[in-house]
Amino acid sequence: MSELTGYKGKALSLLSNHNISIGDTVSVKTSTEEYTGILMPRYEFADDNHIVIKLKNGYNVGIETAGIVKIAKIESKVEQLKGEKIQSSVDQNLPKIALISTGGTIASKIDYRTGGVKAALTAEELYNAVPELSKYARIDTEVLFNEYSENLTAKHWSEMTKKVNEKVVNGYEGVVLTHGTDTMHYSAAALSFALSSVPVPVVIVGAQRSSDRPSSDAALNLIGATLFAARADVSGVFVAMHAGTSDSLIAVHLGTRVRKNHTSRRDAFESINMQPVAYVDGEKIEMKIDSLPRRKSAGKFDAKPNFDERVALLKYHPSMDPRIIEHLIDLGYRGLVFEGTGLGHVGKQCFDAIKKAVEHDMLVCMSSQCIWGRVRMTVYETGRDLLSIGVVPLSDMIGETALVKTMWALANSKDLQGAKDLIMQNIAMEYFDVSSFD
Amino acid sequence: MSELTGYKGKALSLLSNHNISIGDTVSVKTSTEEYTGILMPRYEFADDNHIVIKLKNGYNVGIETAGIVKIAKIESKVEQLKGEKIQSSVDQNLPKIALISTGGTIASKIDYRTGGVKAALTAEELYNAVPELSKYARIDTEVLFNEYSENLTAKHWSEMTKKVNEKVVNGYEGVVLTHGTDTMHYSAAALSFALSSVPVPVVIVGAQRSSDRPSSDAALNLIGATLFAARADVSGVFVAMHAGTSDSLIAVHLGTRVRKNHTSRRDAFESINMQPVAYVDGEKIEMKIDSLPRRKSAGKFDAKPNFDERVALLKYHPSMDPRIIEHLIDLGYRGLVFEGTGLGHVGKQCFDAIKKAVEHDMLVCMSSQCIWGRVRMTVYETGRDLLSIGVVPLSDMIGETALVKTMWALANSKDLQGAKDLIMQNIAMEYFDVSSFD
Repeated sequence: MSELTGYKGKALSLLSNHNISIGDTVSVKTSTEEYTGILMPRYEFADDNHIVIKLKNGYNVGIETAGIVKIAKIESKVEQLKGEKIQSSVDQNLPKIALISTGGTIASKIDYRTGGVKAALTAEELYNAVPELSKYARIDTEVLFNEYSENLTAKHWSEMTKKVNEKVVNGYEGVVLTHGTDTMHYSAAALSFALSSVPVPVVIVGAQRSSDRPSSDAALNLIGATLFAARADVSGVFVAMHAGTSDSLIAVHLGTRVRKNHTSRRDAFESINMQPVAYVDGEKIEMKIDSLPRRKSAGKFDAKPNFDERVALLKYHPSMDPRIIEHLIDLGYRGLVFEGTGLGHVGKQCFDAIKKAVEHDMLVCMSSQCIWGRVRMTVYETGRDLLSIGVVPLSDMIGETALVKTMWALANSKDLQGAKDLIMQNIAMEYFDVSSFD
Repeated sequence: MSELTGYKGKALSLLSNHNISIGDTVSVKTSTEEYTGILMPRYEFADDNHIVIKLKNGYNVGIETAGIVKIAKIESKVEQLKGEKIQSSVDQNLPKIALISTGGTIASKIDYRTGGVKAALTAEELYNAVPELSKYARIDTEVLFNEYSENLTAKHWSEMTKKVNEKVVNGYEGVVLTHGTDTMHYSAAALSFALSSVPVPVVIVGAQRSSDRPSSDAALNLIGATLFAARADVSGVFVAMHAGTSDSLIAVHLGTRVRKNHTSRRDAFESINMQPVAYVDGEKIEMKIDSLPRRKSAGKFDAKPNFDERVALLKYHPSMDPRIIEHLIDLGYRGLVFEGTGLGHVGKQCFDAIKKAVEHDMLVCMSSQCIWGRVRMTVYETGRDLLSIGVVPLSDMIGETALVKTMWALANSKDLQGAKDLIMQNIAMEYFDVSSFD
């Protein structure tokens, strides 16, 4: 009997009649298209009008049952799933990659072939779920934690830093971190500073759509991230996620210059004020930025895992209450990052409170809520006043990166001036010269 | 002797030698281009290698002196500037438009023909500065205030509302408000709610580049805004600003769905989750959205100018301190709008404080810091937990609009439930159905 979890009605009949089970490779013909791929399970709320297959490039498509002209099984599941053998057959000359799981959609739903919702804990399970990985790397997996990324804090960034450090010291030639997408860009910025001298690529990857949905990006993103970690001749911290509307393109973003700009699209992550540093399309890596540091041998390096959580990010808005700033002083905060308006402004009702914060040795920095462009505080009176109060302008550093860097600078310097010096220093391309002011 | 404020060195010699003064219409030929326009003054820090002319479409270009093959005066300033006569010659059948000045780059530097930096106070001065306006409308001007927009508060929104109301009651068929760009989108959202039943178009306009710079957008934006206010068959509150890289295109955005997305570009303002409602190109208005309310006769309508300033906007970030939320409760705040992560999340360390806020009758709402897309709080556990605590999900309403609407809803309802009902109601297309969740 066919194993057809989640299918019902017309879709179920069609598949049963052709003796097709989940996991089988099928060919499907409609009046306009032809598809070959693996039949996927369906989940609660699924309609009975579609079947879902996973194409060879990792992309899931839903095909309307009514439009199917021909359907046939090409290869049955039993012949494909030989997980234990896949791993032992991985080429021992491939780069050794550590895959560290921290949680999120990609980790909790990755096993899309069997429809399981648990984490991909072992290399065997991972290779079973995404067999393409065995072509690119010898992967060892480890679950560091299993959190939705909105629950991650600076303490988790420290843990991630130490774990990556351990892996690289132990000879791993690249690291892939699976991560929830909500705060992935904050973590990417944090690791960019904490691991600024890492000799290999560290690639953070997530999924906007879990693998139980048609058009899931889980497998494709993971393949792209692993390929980049294994083969790209660069070092540093990156985010690899789906790009554009193509079904096969992955963009690799610099860890300090990436932002989640859409709640749900697969291409939600965008590089800000620069293009992605690379694209991965199939097995091809196309580098877009030449100035990245080259890959070096895995081994010891100087990780700086500490962050000071006594830093707040405030997005300025009309009628903002200066008492919030004063409260941060009372709480003993050491840093305050504004997302100001336009070129880096806040309303004058906040000036006295900001002055008081500076007098209490708080490091007060200015980024822009516009997101694109750069802070320029010498153009208007408001900016000049804030500069004279002692606010530090952060040029084209985005607000999220600015928060993270201020937390890191305060934890890695002996005094306020040291922290300011670190803030002004370009550590991980968080300041990017060619950003257009036009 | 030539009047050549700001010119020096080679540029000054070239112009003097050809007996050209500021305000003269000149033709300039380089090896590749030919320009005809009015010679503009230059300002401090200007180099001596360029001359700046204003083209007929309102666009300023800088031309390198070294590349000029031929330059000639076509018409002298004296023959053109007959300000008093321009106004009296304005066609009395043209629509009557009120131009209200609130400050910002566009107001402080608009008089680009004479190089003055004061506000365009009178209709005469305005017609002198931008003669094209006299073709489209009979304009009366009034200075309401003169503030950089970062200093505007909810109290200013109330003043603007009352002033627009006064003008429309007095028969003006459209209103143009000049405004600094920093918080223009917050004001646009505020007026959208306060003036939701306004019978004519209210168009807010600014300039990203003051008129003393080549490529100033001041005149072009003002012309586009005035044309739209005078001729478009719609009512409501809009923002008219430069669009794309063309030198003549103006986008008209819905007041509740527009955001300043770049610190300095002329096309910094973008419609979020929808296209602009219209484009203005030269004298052509191209409507993009059909569902807008039509223009009605100017006259009495129900303005709701009040806002409650006891509302905060907090952008969630990793390690956010829940004591900030508790402090807002202590300060007697009535509303809190989060820009959460992803589909509308905050870290669980804030749950207790949010619960306490809700128990203290604070209206707690959720938008997304992603900017694009929409909050969907039923997808993940975190969202469902926040919903059960009582957080109100704001779908595709952007954070800035959400803040403003919460301030307005609390000031225009008799109790918390009434405010919640107003929040959920679609007042000014702040919820937009066709927004893609794809």
